[in-house]
Amino acid sequence: MTFNDTFLKACRGEATNYTPIWIMRQAGRYLPQYQKVRSGRSFLELCKSPELCVEVTLQPIDILNMDAAILFSDILIPMEAMGLELEFHEGKGPIFPQTVRDQAAVDKLIVPDPLETMGFVMETITLLRKELKVPLIGFAGAPFTCATYLIEGGSSKVFWETKKMMFTAPELFHSLMDKISRCTSKYLLAQAEAGAQALQLFDSWAGVLAPVDFESYAFPYVKRIINDLKPTGLPIIYFANNGSTLLEYSADSGADVIGLDWRINIGDAVKRVGNKAVQGNIDPFALLLPEDKLRGRIKKLLEDAKDAKGHIFNLGHGIHQFTPPEQAKIAVEAVHELSGR
Amino acid sequence: MTFNDTFLKACRGEATNYTPIWIMRQAGRYLPQYQKVRSGRSFLELCKSPELCVEVTLQPIDILNMDAAILFSDILIPMEAMGLELEFHEGKGPIFPQTVRDQAAVDKLIVPDPLETMGFVMETITLLRKELKVPLIGFAGAPFTCATYLIEGGSSKVFWETKKMMFTAPELFHSLMDKISRCTSKYLLAQAEAGAQALQLFDSWAGVLAPVDFESYAFPYVKRIINDLKPTGLPIIYFANNGSTLLEYSADSGADVIGLDWRINIGDAVKRVGNKAVQGNIDPFALLLPEDKLRGRIKKLLEDAKDAKGHIFNLGHGIHQFTPPEQAKIAVEAVHELSGR
Repeated sequence: MTFNDTFLKACRGEATNYTPIWIMRQAGRYLPQYQKVRSGRSFLELCKSPELCVEVTLQPIDILNMDAAILFSDILIPMEAMGLELEFHEGKGPIFPQTVRDQAAVDKLIVPDPLETMGFVMETITLLRKELKVPLIGFAGAPFTCATYLIEGGSSKVFWETKKMMFTAPELFHSLMDKISRCTSKYLLAQAEAGAQALQLFDSWAGVLAPVDFESYAFPYVKRIINDLKPTGLPIIYFANNGSTLLEYSADSGADVIGLDWRINIGDAVKRVGNKAVQGNIDPFALLLPEDKLRGRIKKLLEDAKDAKGHIFNLGHGIHQFTPPEQAKIAVEAVHELSGR
Repeated sequence: MTFNDTFLKACRGEATNYTPIWIMRQAGRYLPQYQKVRSGRSFLELCKSPELCVEVTLQPIDILNMDAAILFSDILIPMEAMGLELEFHEGKGPIFPQTVRDQAAVDKLIVPDPLETMGFVMETITLLRKELKVPLIGFAGAPFTCATYLIEGGSSKVFWETKKMMFTAPELFHSLMDKISRCTSKYLLAQAEAGAQALQLFDSWAGVLAPVDFESYAFPYVKRIINDLKPTGLPIIYFANNGSTLLEYSADSGADVIGLDWRINIGDAVKRVGNKAVQGNIDPFALLLPEDKLRGRIKKLLEDAKDAKGHIFNLGHGIHQFTPPEQAKIAVEAVHELSGR
C-alpha cells in the first residue's frame, strides 16, 4: 500500500482525485475499540503511553478509512508541562486546581523543553510515522483557549474570570498569553521535528470573543505561532471554533487551511477566506441522519465547497461519544464516493 | 414626567434625539435591590407574584435610567402552563423532570389559555403600565429554544437529544414545535392585550443550529409567530443568540428589530440586515472595562451602528450577576451622553 497524500495536497491547494476526510476526535470514545484500550486506566495515563496512543490513533484509519491521522493527545498536555497540576475527572472535564490569576502565578510558569517534559508525545509521533500510510497531523491548543483553562481552573460556560482579567488587567493577560505562546511554538516545532506532517491549532473558545477583543487579545499570538512554524514548511490549520465572525482574521493568520465549525454554510465561508483551503464542516450530530439524507447533505456540502482552493472534509466539531461508528463509516464512504474516489 | 417613547421610535426606525438603551436581564441578580426582593422565596414564586414582579421590573428604570422596561418573568413559564412540571434548582438552572421525547408526551401537552394559566403575567403587565414612564417589553422564548429545554429536560451544552430528535424523528420534532408555537402566539397576543408595547422573541439556543437546519426546523415557527403578532401593530424584536450566520433569516422573519449578540461587529450586521432596526451588542463582560475604555468602546459602537435604520443599545447577552451596578450605570450614562441626550 502506497502513501496516501491526498490530505496534504488538499491542504496545499493542489488538485486531488477526491476530497479527503478526517474527523475531529476520530480517535475517541465513540469507538468500542478505543473504549477497550482506555478501560482500566486514566485519560492522562493513556495520553502518556506512546504505544497505546499509537494504537488508538491508528484505529479510525483502519476501521473507518480516514485520509489523515491525528496524534492522540490533549491540548492541555503542554499546560501541565508548564508546571501546573492537571486532573481529569470522569464526566467533568479538565481541572487545574491552582488557577493562574495573578502575576506571581504567571511568573511561576515555565516555558518547558518539549523533549524533556513531553517526550512521550514525540515518541508517539515517531512510532506512528513508521506505521501510517496517511499523513499525521500534530496539534496544540491556541493560546487563548489554553489560557481560559488556566484562568478559570477548568472548563467554563461564560469565561467570567478570563474576560475579567482581559478587561481589568490586560498586561497580566498579555504576559500569560506570551508565555503560553512561546511554549506552544516550541511544542509544535518539536512535533514537526519528530515527524508530524501538518499542524493544527485548535482555538476551541475563540468564539466567545467579540471581534474587537479577538483582534487585541488572541489573534496576535495565533499569528506569531504560525509565523514561528513557517520554517517547517508544513501545512498549518487554524480552527477557531464558533468563529464565523472571525473568518477574515483566520484567513489573515498565515494558516494554509481554515477550519470551519458547522454554523456557517461552507460556500459562504469559502467566499470570505479567499485563497485558502478550508476544512469542515458538517454538524457532528447530522451523522445521525438516515443514510439517504446523510448522503444528500454530504453531496450538497461538497458542491457548496467546490470553489475552495482546497477542501478537507471534516465535522464542524468533534464527533460525539454516542455516535454509532457505522454512521461515521457511512459518512466517510459517501465523501469518498461522491467526490470521485 | 412625560412618557419617554424613544425606544419605540427607534424600533420603528423613526428619528430619535438619542440612542435608547435597555439591557437584557436588567431586572436581575446583579442588583442588590433585586436580591432583597428575591431573598427568602423561590424564583418561580417571584415570577408568579405580580406586585413583586412589578417592583423588580421597575428597579433598573429607577436606578439606572433605562429607556425601556422588560417584564420580569422567565421564558419557561408558558412551558409549565403547557402541563409540565418545572423546577429551578439554585445554581443549576431549570429542570423538567418529565422530558418530552415521544409522540405521547407531545400529545399530552396542552395549548393553554394564557389568562387562565398565566394570569399573573398579564396582571403584572397591567400594573406596570400604570407605573411606567418608558415602554414595556413583553417577551417569550422562541420555539426552538423552548423545545430544547423540554427535550433535554433542562439546560444543555451540546443538545444531543434535541438534534437526535430532529435528525431521526423529524415529524415528532415538528409536532412539538407546532404545539409550542401555538402556545407562544397566544401567550404573546395576551401580553399585547394586557398592555405590552413591544414584544421580544428570545431564541437563546438558535445558534447551535447549522443554517440549513435553522431554516427547516426553527425558522418557519419564528415566522409564523411573528405573523400571528402582526395584527397587534407592536414592534417585534427577534434575538437569535450566537446567530451571526443566521442574520439573513432574522432579517426575513418579519421582525422590526434584530437583536445582535456581541460576536459580530454591529456595522457588519447592519449591512446584512438591511432596512431593519438593530438591538445590541456590547459584550456584557466589557462592562468591567475602566470607565475611559468603556466609554471609548461605546462611542465606537454607536459610530459603527450609525447607518442602522434604528439602533437600540443593549448588551449582546444578559448582564452577568457579578457585574457591579455602577458599571452598568456608567454604560447607560455614556450611551445617553455620547448619542446626544
